[in-house]
Amino acid sequence: MAFDYDVIIIGSGPGGYATALRTSDLGLKTAVIEMKDVVGGTCLNRGCIPTKAYLTAAHTLHDAHRANNWGIDISVNSVDMSALKQAKDKTVSGVVKGLSQLMKARKIDIIHGQGSLIAPHRVSVCDGEDSREFSANHVVLATGSYATELEGFEFLHADAQTVREAIADKKVPILSSDEALDIDIMPENVVIVGSGTIAVEFANFWNSLGVNVTILLRKDTVLSRWDSHISSVVMRTLKRQGINFEFHSKILSAESGDVTFSVTSEKDGAVVQKTIPADFVLCAIGRSPRTDFDWYKNAGIKLDAHGFVVTDDYGRTSLDNVWALGDITGGHLLAHEAFEQALTVSESIAGIPTRIVDTHTIPEVVFGIIDAVSIGYTKNQAEALDYIEVEETVVPQLSNPRVAMMGSNGTTVIVSAVDPHTNTRIVIGIHMAGPSASELAGAAREIIQNRIPLHDAANALFAHPTISETLGESLLKADGRPLNLR
Amino acid sequence: MAFDYDVIIIGSGPGGYATALRTSDLGLKTAVIEMKDVVGGTCLNRGCIPTKAYLTAAHTLHDAHRANNWGIDISVNSVDMSALKQAKDKTVSGVVKGLSQLMKARKIDIIHGQGSLIAPHRVSVCDGEDSREFSANHVVLATGSYATELEGFEFLHADAQTVREAIADKKVPILSSDEALDIDIMPENVVIVGSGTIAVEFANFWNSLGVNVTILLRKDTVLSRWDSHISSVVMRTLKRQGINFEFHSKILSAESGDVTFSVTSEKDGAVVQKTIPADFVLCAIGRSPRTDFDWYKNAGIKLDAHGFVVTDDYGRTSLDNVWALGDITGGHLLAHEAFEQALTVSESIAGIPTRIVDTHTIPEVVFGIIDAVSIGYTKNQAEALDYIEVEETVVPQLSNPRVAMMGSNGTTVIVSAVDPHTNTRIVIGIHMAGPSASELAGAAREIIQNRIPLHDAANALFAHPTISETLGESLLKADGRPLNLR
Repeated sequence: MAFDYDVIIIGSGPGGYATALRTSDLGLKTAVIEMKDVVGGTCLNRGCIPTKAYLTAAHTLHDAHRANNWGIDISVNSVDMSALKQAKDKTVSGVVKGLSQLMKARKIDIIHGQGSLIAPHRVSVCDGEDSREFSANHVVLATGSYATELEGFEFLHADAQTVREAIADKKVPILSSDEALDIDIMPENVVIVGSGTIAVEFANFWNSLGVNVTILLRKDTVLSRWDSHISSVVMRTLKRQGINFEFHSKILSAESGDVTFSVTSEKDGAVVQKTIPADFVLCAIGRSPRTDFDWYKNAGIKLDAHGFVVTDDYGRTSLDNVWALGDITGGHLLAHEAFEQALTVSESIAGIPTRIVDTHTIPEVVFGIIDAVSIGYTKNQAEALDYIEVEETVVPQLSNPRVAMMGSNGTTVIVSAVDPHTNTRIVIGIHMAGPSASELAGAAREIIQNRIPLHDAANALFAHPTISETLGESLLKADGRPLNLR
Repeated sequence: MAFDYDVIIIGSGPGGYATALRTSDLGLKTAVIEMKDVVGGTCLNRGCIPTKAYLTAAHTLHDAHRANNWGIDISVNSVDMSALKQAKDKTVSGVVKGLSQLMKARKIDIIHGQGSLIAPHRVSVCDGEDSREFSANHVVLATGSYATELEGFEFLHADAQTVREAIADKKVPILSSDEALDIDIMPENVVIVGSGTIAVEFANFWNSLGVNVTILLRKDTVLSRWDSHISSVVMRTLKRQGINFEFHSKILSAESGDVTFSVTSEKDGAVVQKTIPADFVLCAIGRSPRTDFDWYKNAGIKLDAHGFVVTDDYGRTSLDNVWALGDITGGHLLAHEAFEQALTVSESIAGIPTRIVDTHTIPEVVFGIIDAVSIGYTKNQAEALDYIEVEETVVPQLSNPRVAMMGSNGTTVIVSAVDPHTNTRIVIGIHMAGPSASELAGAAREIIQNRIPLHDAANALFAHPTISETLGESLLKADGRPLNLR
């Protein structure tokens, strides 16, 4: 064999490891380079999995606080944040271990160290003093992303003990989600800067623990790019849970146990300053592609203005036999998007038939006491894209018995349009906020991606009594046949 | 107008009320006759809704007992069965009220009393002494079902106080699910006879309350008609929860605070007798169609050997302009099956295009701490039906991070076959046991009913990290592309 490997992948997050799993399954000799001690990247170690572990605990607390509605006398005596953090770590290490075993079973080599593309087909791996080189027919870049820093508010990138000391010294450290996940003491007051998925998920978590949470937003809503019905349900729910919002605000300082910020009045532009106590600040204003290594520039990999790698629909970069996927290629920066890209890249490398990722049908999901899901287009987007006869059906979930039993609420939005090829009405967008909405995303996506006519999708009634009927009933209503709905 | 109504429906359960909602929406003058004080039938008042209210409480208790795994110190001090029963009643009355308002908004007349078809187009309604007659162009029969009695073990059909007294007197009353739902004291020992949905759901509920539950089964598993992988996961989970099983058993007596039953050895046919303490017996051996009114026979409505009304694919009975749907027509005896029939019957009556109910894709669902779902064919069924190249993919849910976080387990089974018309492999069965499986039934059904090719269904990756990925990953594996699975 001319090369050490058929495929070398730099980065073992969802994009990287899924590519490795698929290429190895296709018979290609595969290695993954990982700079950290463990595989799994942000998703497994510092993202999806640990936050969902915390939200599992949040659900338990939420339900316990509602138990008296069912005649159940439950006392929540205490939450041991150190034990909760350990349980989260145990969950993460279980998932990481499972992935390691799976990679081993597929005979994937895992090489620890800092990988760089140094020449066509050549990758170097630096592990401290040690540097090795490997050759591969194909190189896949999957170096991921990191939390974006707010100008003037440097992250305290430090271990849990240093963060703990900074909090004890009332230094009000600025944390990224990485450090926030490592905190093992119970905070009293937390300020979150940001309005996206990470901000909302952490707000849900700390709020469930009884922490006083304040979110500073530039605009007047969380999830501002989302369908407005959905973002307003999420806002309303977070407020009802007791989370504080400061709209049109800008953080000015974080020190001496306080955060000071300005709030600009929408009416007259007047600016007032406020100061509130805070143990620390979670800054969650976005994520940046980890493409700022020198070797990206030296190798001549084409990036866009935001630093994302430019690829074709199959993941090919500007260099021959160099591919890229996952967070460095932009899009939604979601694990399941990276999984899909991994299938496409792997199958393209293997030279077998594949399909391009249908980016617009990738479900965006925000998890919480209620979840939010967005798949496909909103009405505004669809109209801007010249879809024909766009219709929007907005259905509150109040009449769903299961949602009511949970003391919850929600909204479902169906966006449909006429498919000019078949002259049938198809579903082009489904947006949901409500309990377990994340679990309904699969049905929504099957309908949209497979262009199932609205009428046929509505004909497949959902099981009774489930929360999923919120989707089924909304489809029937969109199809002009409202059943258990006005 | 020659008739008082375009449509009169006898029975206001899911089949009846959904027909009324649809026919009225289609502009037909509609009345519903209901013998009870409230609309909604078994489902709303004595079935789906109250049991799910109880299971919501069960989930809260289950999660509370697991909270210490998350460093959360929760004490479950007590459960007030009377308050829990009241909360269940409040949930039911909320749903009933919502339905009443919806029916009112659609201008449906609700006539209380015992309805009978007395002649073509003529229905009488008896309410105590009072008897009235109404005429309608179409009459829809939706008289539902009732719990089947076990020979020699008569139900104590009585109010909650009488049942409470019988329990206090150690009479070990035999209860149907109707009375079981009305109990407002906490039992100590319960014996359940049966192995279907109702038996399993009540077992889950009482077990969560700390009640000692023993299930007497004729065979060696619950859900014996189901895919065996699924029924065995359910069995294992129920056992792990602490529910007792007596296989190959037969109840002999229930008296003086005890239940005595025989157990037949599978090996040598030896029979032993056992006696265990019991407050009461829930007999859940099945449901019988409520077609044993004299007027069914007098009107000449054709019934099958089991008493179910014989209809064509559109719900037409043996009599002109007389239709039937819901539990009296057999099938799965499920609310959402009745909803679908209601659409078909209503649209047929209105003379607009409709479709016949795709009975084999109706999801069967058992709710519990883990749910079980069965849609479409099992491998055995498919092979018996001459499907081509039937394949079965069985995937444990252990590797799903969300299932692991819940300390739960599960299994997903995908049955696929080659569609002779298109020569593509399609999904013809999806069977699942696991947490929230009921919420995944919608996605499964959209795939099966709309004959989405397996490859395309698998291409629509599910959101990460969700329980629904158990389905997505299983589809990928069935399609020969296992991703996060061995």
